[in-house]
Amino acid sequence: MPTLNEIEAALEAGDETRLGEICAELHPADAAAAFVALDEAEQERFGHFLDNEALSLIASHLPSPESADLVANLPETDRGEVLGGLPDDIVADIIQESDAAQTEDIVRLLSSEMGEKARRLASYPDDSAAGWMTTAFATLRENMTVREAIAALDAIKENTEVLARIYVVDDYGRILGKVRLRDLTFNKRSVLVRDIMDDERLAIGAMADQEEAVQMMVKYDMLALPVVDDEGVLLGIITHDDALEILEEETTEDLERAAAIGGDRDEEGYLKSPVIAHFRRRAVWVFFLALVAILSGLVIFAYEKLLDDVFILAVYMPMIVATGGNTGAQAATMVIRAMSLGEFTPAAFTRVVWKELRVGLALGALLGLLIAVGSWLVIGNFFVPGGMVDVPDGLSLGKVMLTVGIALTVQVAASTFIGAALPMLARAAKLDPAVVASPAITTVVDVLGLLIYFQLAALILGLGG
Amino acid sequence: MPTLNEIEAALEAGDETRLGEICAELHPADAAAAFVALDEAEQERFGHFLDNEALSLIASHLPSPESADLVANLPETDRGEVLGGLPDDIVADIIQESDAAQTEDIVRLLSSEMGEKARRLASYPDDSAAGWMTTAFATLRENMTVREAIAALDAIKENTEVLARIYVVDDYGRILGKVRLRDLTFNKRSVLVRDIMDDERLAIGAMADQEEAVQMMVKYDMLALPVVDDEGVLLGIITHDDALEILEEETTEDLERAAAIGGDRDEEGYLKSPVIAHFRRRAVWVFFLALVAILSGLVIFAYEKLLDDVFILAVYMPMIVATGGNTGAQAATMVIRAMSLGEFTPAAFTRVVWKELRVGLALGALLGLLIAVGSWLVIGNFFVPGGMVDVPDGLSLGKVMLTVGIALTVQVAASTFIGAALPMLARAAKLDPAVVASPAITTVVDVLGLLIYFQLAALILGLGG
Repeated sequence: MPTLNEIEAALEAGDETRLGEICAELHPADAAAAFVALDEAEQERFGHFLDNEALSLIASHLPSPESADLVANLPETDRGEVLGGLPDDIVADIIQESDAAQTEDIVRLLSSEMGEKARRLASYPDDSAAGWMTTAFATLRENMTVREAIAALDAIKENTEVLARIYVVDDYGRILGKVRLRDLTFNKRSVLVRDIMDDERLAIGAMADQEEAVQMMVKYDMLALPVVDDEGVLLGIITHDDALEILEEETTEDLERAAAIGGDRDEEGYLKSPVIAHFRRRAVWVFFLALVAILSGLVIFAYEKLLDDVFILAVYMPMIVATGGNTGAQAATMVIRAMSLGEFTPAAFTRVVWKELRVGLALGALLGLLIAVGSWLVIGNFFVPGGMVDVPDGLSLGKVMLTVGIALTVQVAASTFIGAALPMLARAAKLDPAVVASPAITTVVDVLGLLIYFQLAALILGLGG
Repeated sequence: MPTLNEIEAALEAGDETRLGEICAELHPADAAAAFVALDEAEQERFGHFLDNEALSLIASHLPSPESADLVANLPETDRGEVLGGLPDDIVADIIQESDAAQTEDIVRLLSSEMGEKARRLASYPDDSAAGWMTTAFATLRENMTVREAIAALDAIKENTEVLARIYVVDDYGRILGKVRLRDLTFNKRSVLVRDIMDDERLAIGAMADQEEAVQMMVKYDMLALPVVDDEGVLLGIITHDDALEILEEETTEDLERAAAIGGDRDEEGYLKSPVIAHFRRRAVWVFFLALVAILSGLVIFAYEKLLDDVFILAVYMPMIVATGGNTGAQAATMVIRAMSLGEFTPAAFTRVVWKELRVGLALGALLGLLIAVGSWLVIGNFFVPGGMVDVPDGLSLGKVMLTVGIALTVQVAASTFIGAALPMLARAAKLDPAVVASPAITTVVDVLGLLIYFQLAALILGLGG
C-alpha cells in the first residue's frame, strides 16, 4: 500500500498539512486499513491529526476490537463525540468488546436513547440475526399520503442507513408491507402509502442464526432484511453489506472446520492474533485425531505376520490409505456444500448415497485397475525377482496386484459412501455436519482402509492375519 | 417444502384455480425453487398455467441452464414475451447456455437494442466483473437541476435495477460522481446535480476477476459497483445481490479446491449433475495424489529392515503421518484464508512463517511428549514383555518412545512450516494458492514424515536403515 508509506512518512515528519491532504483523498475504508497497519505509537499520533468526524468514519470501518481500542484511548470529550457519530450497531460491537465499567462510560457519554439502544443491541448473541441489525431504519404508516411520508422521512433521513426500503407498520410496529423510496419520489403527493405499498412481509426472527439470515437475503435478492421479535414487531434491519460480512465469516468457519481448526477466528486477524491463540484453536482436533490414528497402528500390528511374509504389501499401504482419505473428503465436501446451499436435506439420503456409491465405484475400479496393471508391468519387467518383488514361494506378483486393485476399489467406494453418509446423518441428528467433515472422515477411513486391505490380502493370498 | 406437494397435487388434479392461488402467494424465488424440484412433464404443465410475466419472474430466479431450458421449450410467441420481461444480464446468461442457432433466435425475438446488449454482455467471461453486470443503471449529467433529474429518472425507472445509486457522467460516459435517490427526493427542485453529487468514483475494470469485484464491494460497503472499460466509460453495474452470489461461488471453489475437487461446480446443482460429471471433477487429483502416495510406500520399502527389527515402530507410523497431514492442512488453510481476506501478501513471508513455526513446534512438542510418555506408561505397565513390546535385545522401550516423541515434534513443526510456506510461494509466483491447498500438502508431508521418522529411529536406536 503506497498510501501507508506516505502516511508513515508524514507522521514521522510531523507534516500536518500533508497528512490532511492524504486523508482528504482517502476513502474511510482505506484510512481504516492504513490505521490497522500502523503501530500503536503511530496510531496515537495519527488520531491526533484527525477530527472527530473522520475518527467516527474510520472507527466504523475497523474490526471491533480495534475500534474499541481507538475509542478507549481518546480523551473523554472526543470520546463522546466520536461515539455519537457512530451507527448504533457499531457502538454495540464496541460494547461487546468492553468490560462493565467501560460500557457504563460509553452509555453515559451517549444520549440516553442511543445508549440504551446500543446496550440492548449488544445483548444479542454475535451470530444471531439481531446481533447484526441496526435500528437505523425508517417506518411509515399506511394512511399517510406520499407528501406526509416524504416529510416524515426528511426529518429522520440523517439517522437512517437504508432509505431504499421503507417499512409500513401497524400500531404495534408489525410490518404491513414496504415501499421503495422511488415509489414515493415518482408518485403524486396526494396518493396514500397504503395504495402504493408492496405487501411483502419477509422478515427473520431476532434469535435466528446469522446463516439463515444471509440465506434469505441471497434467495430473495434482498437489499435489507427486517428482524422481528416473537410478536412480529420490527426491531431492526440487516443491510446488504452485513450480508457480505456474514457470508465471509461463514466461509471462514466452513474452511476452518474442514481443516480441523476449532473455535472462532480472531477478529483482529491472523497476524495480530497471538501464537497461543492459534495453538488453542488447532490443538484439540489434532490431539484427538492423533489418538484415533493409533488405531490404524494397531491394525498394522495385528497383521504383523502377513506384512512380514509379503512385505511388498507395505509399499501400497500408504497409497490405499491416502486415496481413501482423499475420496472420502471429496464426497463429504460435496455433500456438506450442497446441503448448505439448500440443494437437499437428509431426506434425500438414498439418492445422494446411491450417486456417491456409483462415483466411488467408478473412481476406485479405474484407479485400482491402473495401479495394479501398471505395477505388475513395471515390477515384472524392471525389477529382479527376489529384490523388490519379495513374494514368498507359491504366491505370484499377479495375485498381490489383484489384492491391491480390489482393495483400492473397495476402499474408495467405502470411503466415498462414508464421506457422503456421515454428514447427512449428522445433519439429520441436528448436529453441524462440519463435525464430521474431512479430517474426521479421513481418520475413520484410514483405519477402515487398512482393515479392508489386509483382510483381502489374507483371503486372496491364502495367508493368516 | 409443503408448497411443492401442494403444487404437485394441484397439477395432478388439473386444478387450475388452486394453482393460481398457490402461485399468487408465492415469492418468485420460491416458485423457482418449486419449479426446479418438479420433473420435466410437471414443469411443462406448470408452465402452461403461468402467464408470461410470471414466467419471466420465475426464469430470473432459476439457475441459468434451467432458465435456458424453460425459455427454449416455450412456443415462439410466448418466448419473445418472456425474454422481453427478463433483465439483460439474465438474457446474457441464457445466451451463454445456448448454441449459435438458439442465440440468433433469442436476439431476433428481442428489440434490436436489447438483443445487441444481451449478446455483448454474453461475450464477457463468466468470472469477470463485466460477466456479472447489468446495463440497467441510471445516469445523470452534472448541469441538470434536481427537477430535470427526477423527470429523467421517471422516464427510465422501469428499466433500472438500482435507483439508490445514480451515476453522474461526462460527455463520454465517464463517471464524475454519484448521487443517491434521497439526495434528489429531499432537495430543492432548482438545485444543480453538480452541487449535491458525491465525487466518489470507485469502479472496476470490465475484465477484472469477479473476486476482486466482490472484495471492493465488501471493503467499501457498496450497494452497486460500477464497471468501466479501459477509457473509464461506464458499462454497467454489479448489484448487491450479485455480490452475494459471487461470494457463494468463490466459497464453493475454495472448499472444493481444499478437498482436491477440480473444475467448476455444475450450475444445475449436485443432484442434477450426472455421475460422469462428478467423476471427472474428482478423478484427476485423486489419481495424481495416489501416484505421489506410492513414494511413501517406497520410503517404507527402503526401511524394511528397520521395521523388521523393531516392528513396534509401525504402530506409530500412521499417527505420525496423519498428524503431519492435519497440522499442515491447518496451516495452509489459515494462511490461504488470511491472504484471500487481504490480511497480508507474500511480502509478510518471514512474519507468517515464523509464527507458524512456533505454533508447529508447540503443537508437536506437546503432542510428542503426551504420546511418548503415555505410551511408555501404558505399554510398560499393561503389556507383557515380548508381546506388543517387540523390542530387540539392547534396545529399551524408552528409546523407542523417545524416537516417536522427537519424530512427532519434528514432523509437526516441518508440516506446519510447509503448509504455510507453499501457499505463500505459490501466490508470490502468481499461481492460485489453492493448487497447493490441503490435499497436495498432506501428500507431500506424508512422504516427508516417514523419512523423518525412520531416519530418526535409525539414528536414535543405532540401527541401519
